[in-house]
Amino acid sequence: MRLSRYFLPVLKETPSEAQIVSHRYMLRAGMIKQASAGIYSWLPLGYKVLRNIEAIVHEEQQRAGHIPMLMPTLQSADLWRESGRYDAYGPEMLRIRDRQDRDMLYGPTNEELITDIFRSHVSSYKDLPLTLYHIQWKFRDEIRPRFGVMRGREFLMKDGYNFDLTKEDALHAYNRHLVSYLRSYERMGLQAIPMRADSGPIGGDDTHEFLVLAETGESEVFYDSEITDLKFGDRAIDYDDHAQCRAVLEEFTSRYARTDETHDEALFNQVPEERRRTARGIEVGQIFYFGTKYSEPMGATVQGPDGQAVPVHMGSHGIGVSRLLGAIIEASHDDRGIIWPEGVTPFHCGIVNLKSGDEAADAACRSIYDSLTALGLEPLYDDTDDRAGAKFATMDLIGLPWRITVGPRGLKNGVVELTSRRTGTSEELPPEQAVERIAQIYGKASA
Amino acid sequence: MRLSRYFLPVLKETPSEAQIVSHRYMLRAGMIKQASAGIYSWLPLGYKVLRNIEAIVHEEQQRAGHIPMLMPTLQSADLWRESGRYDAYGPEMLRIRDRQDRDMLYGPTNEELITDIFRSHVSSYKDLPLTLYHIQWKFRDEIRPRFGVMRGREFLMKDGYNFDLTKEDALHAYNRHLVSYLRSYERMGLQAIPMRADSGPIGGDDTHEFLVLAETGESEVFYDSEITDLKFGDRAIDYDDHAQCRAVLEEFTSRYARTDETHDEALFNQVPEERRRTARGIEVGQIFYFGTKYSEPMGATVQGPDGQAVPVHMGSHGIGVSRLLGAIIEASHDDRGIIWPEGVTPFHCGIVNLKSGDEAADAACRSIYDSLTALGLEPLYDDTDDRAGAKFATMDLIGLPWRITVGPRGLKNGVVELTSRRTGTSEELPPEQAVERIAQIYGKASA
Repeated sequence: MRLSRYFLPVLKETPSEAQIVSHRYMLRAGMIKQASAGIYSWLPLGYKVLRNIEAIVHEEQQRAGHIPMLMPTLQSADLWRESGRYDAYGPEMLRIRDRQDRDMLYGPTNEELITDIFRSHVSSYKDLPLTLYHIQWKFRDEIRPRFGVMRGREFLMKDGYNFDLTKEDALHAYNRHLVSYLRSYERMGLQAIPMRADSGPIGGDDTHEFLVLAETGESEVFYDSEITDLKFGDRAIDYDDHAQCRAVLEEFTSRYARTDETHDEALFNQVPEERRRTARGIEVGQIFYFGTKYSEPMGATVQGPDGQAVPVHMGSHGIGVSRLLGAIIEASHDDRGIIWPEGVTPFHCGIVNLKSGDEAADAACRSIYDSLTALGLEPLYDDTDDRAGAKFATMDLIGLPWRITVGPRGLKNGVVELTSRRTGTSEELPPEQAVERIAQIYGKASA
Repeated sequence: MRLSRYFLPVLKETPSEAQIVSHRYMLRAGMIKQASAGIYSWLPLGYKVLRNIEAIVHEEQQRAGHIPMLMPTLQSADLWRESGRYDAYGPEMLRIRDRQDRDMLYGPTNEELITDIFRSHVSSYKDLPLTLYHIQWKFRDEIRPRFGVMRGREFLMKDGYNFDLTKEDALHAYNRHLVSYLRSYERMGLQAIPMRADSGPIGGDDTHEFLVLAETGESEVFYDSEITDLKFGDRAIDYDDHAQCRAVLEEFTSRYARTDETHDEALFNQVPEERRRTARGIEVGQIFYFGTKYSEPMGATVQGPDGQAVPVHMGSHGIGVSRLLGAIIEASHDDRGIIWPEGVTPFHCGIVNLKSGDEAADAACRSIYDSLTALGLEPLYDDTDDRAGAKFATMDLIGLPWRITVGPRGLKNGVVELTSRRTGTSEELPPEQAVERIAQIYGKASA
């Protein structure tokens, strides 16, 4: 993309309403614009990152064997009356009446709707195991929306639901989700720690939240420092293998790690003192096993191998897709702006032309741009007339992990400059080598 | 995908509530399930087609230089009061009050919101031309929702908005949209004819609707039969070239083609009688030029080259993404089920194992499946124990354009059967050649 043809409305001033760094930078980098309280428009740059995060979630869910679909945003109140949650949910549920005076609601979650789909179509244990998920906008009418997309009212969430014949199978689905979540967050450049959690209004016994450590996190967390050394990495996993998935759960949840809601001081004190940590964390996902809590009242049963109808064992598993943008920025920025991890960056690298209009500089930029594009990479080329300082400031603010700087002086020596946003280190090298390096970083074969 | 691991709840019975063929087949093929009146859940098969259509729209919009973003589903009433449409819109607008008693609405369209974004961020003609678009769920509280996704209440739409300094530039944007729409529909296997239209509640002077001819269409249409011979094809187009885009507009709109809303009997009678056609059509898109209708009342101005502030010339351009599934099925089916065009098919081909459990048949199916997958294609492999007749009926119903049938008898002669869903013709050939043929059809290099 050439910047002169893009819509990137960066702000020089820090907007006064933004209290935390991710909200400030998302506004300043022209990623979002508030449409009304807690509701945002995703401007092109923000939308690109949102889509990248969504794509990682889709890939990892499907790798785990979970099946994508899509439920609507508006739901009928009737289903929620069946489960008993319509009255229980409180004022955070946005209740709507349509022109026929039917009670509707903007879904804050989808247990009822998915259970209804299941009970309408599945009647035999032979169709299990089954995990369906979707990525859809939700609404929660927060009394005081704040922190930008971190605590908005309209937010994008992945929620998945497993249906299993037995508790054991359902716990395997739980473990499968844990593994797929660890992989997803790592691909986004995040360390998200599974912590024993409170089940809240969805209900259930087994539940873990995934927390990203960050000073601005809303929860106080307590953990054994050994946990931050764990990496899922690129180890192979067979999602059908119960023992393998269970082993990952054990590895990642056997050490002490809890939020203030479930914190147990006595247990925590059994951790050797030098490994005890207290910090703040941002919740970016949660997995639940809740057994037959919805299948029983809603009659979601299957015929088992013995011919008896039994309610299915279920769980629900969520990732806060829009909130993740905030979490990633909270975890990865400096005082000049955002530092995107390579896995989610909106553009793979920036190209800064120090002297637009200079024939050699223009030609070199175009050639680098075309080479990167041919490799399937997407550069953002600042081809505007702005002065160099302003171009650097914008690139730093929007946080592309790599920048290639092209100027007449360097070109006379046959070199351009390749700069890492994270470390700030620069290196001079011929244009083709700069392209080659970017290609390597993103795992693309160079031409 | 192996069918035994997928969620494809096909129905044997024709649901009584469905009056038109696309609705019937979408329900029977397990593509959608009604959640409440005019609101649908997209089951996995339907969701895949929806995503394929979305992907084509994204690609063609971006090819035309239009920039993707995303606006929220819920909007504040205040902006609509500014444009004067809040009171004018009538009961099809779903009006909502939040817990703070603020008037909100579920957006039926986004002219106000995008104009607000524009006026907040753009102030100079140097930032023009600009076209922003999004694909987002909309809501229209139809009094009598019907025909499945063709006339639902919650529906997915692409809407794009151009901002230009002059009327001439805005008309170029209009033409650019016309070209990109022709390309998009053709890639979906549709012939959509641009017809002079009525501007309706959005307002404006120049507007064309795109109509797909189908017996069940809601509009009566009148046209010169020469128009159905026109194809955009794969001709090269430079979207920056005003004259090229204008020539496409002229080619595709110079012949008589109108809906009943704008039909002019006297003009129609000037078409030679043997070329006069009356038929029914389904609207799948509309383009508008409406000048300064929103920019003036909402103060969306830019400073022109002479330093004067002038309101921008705008247009809005929509594609009915979810409705397109219905339109495609109406245009492409037979009495056994759907016939997907290759451009949107949920799976590239079906693989039917005539004797699951037979060692040779199982191995051949797996090998075909793996070869197709390695080429980047997605087959649906019916690996269940159903009898052959039921497997064929399901494949015909869900409409995959190609089917490879594998059985022990054919394998003894070293062949499988490749069948075209559209023509019904079958051909026996060695498994590798069947794979090769599918690869060719979808433009994938074979291994």
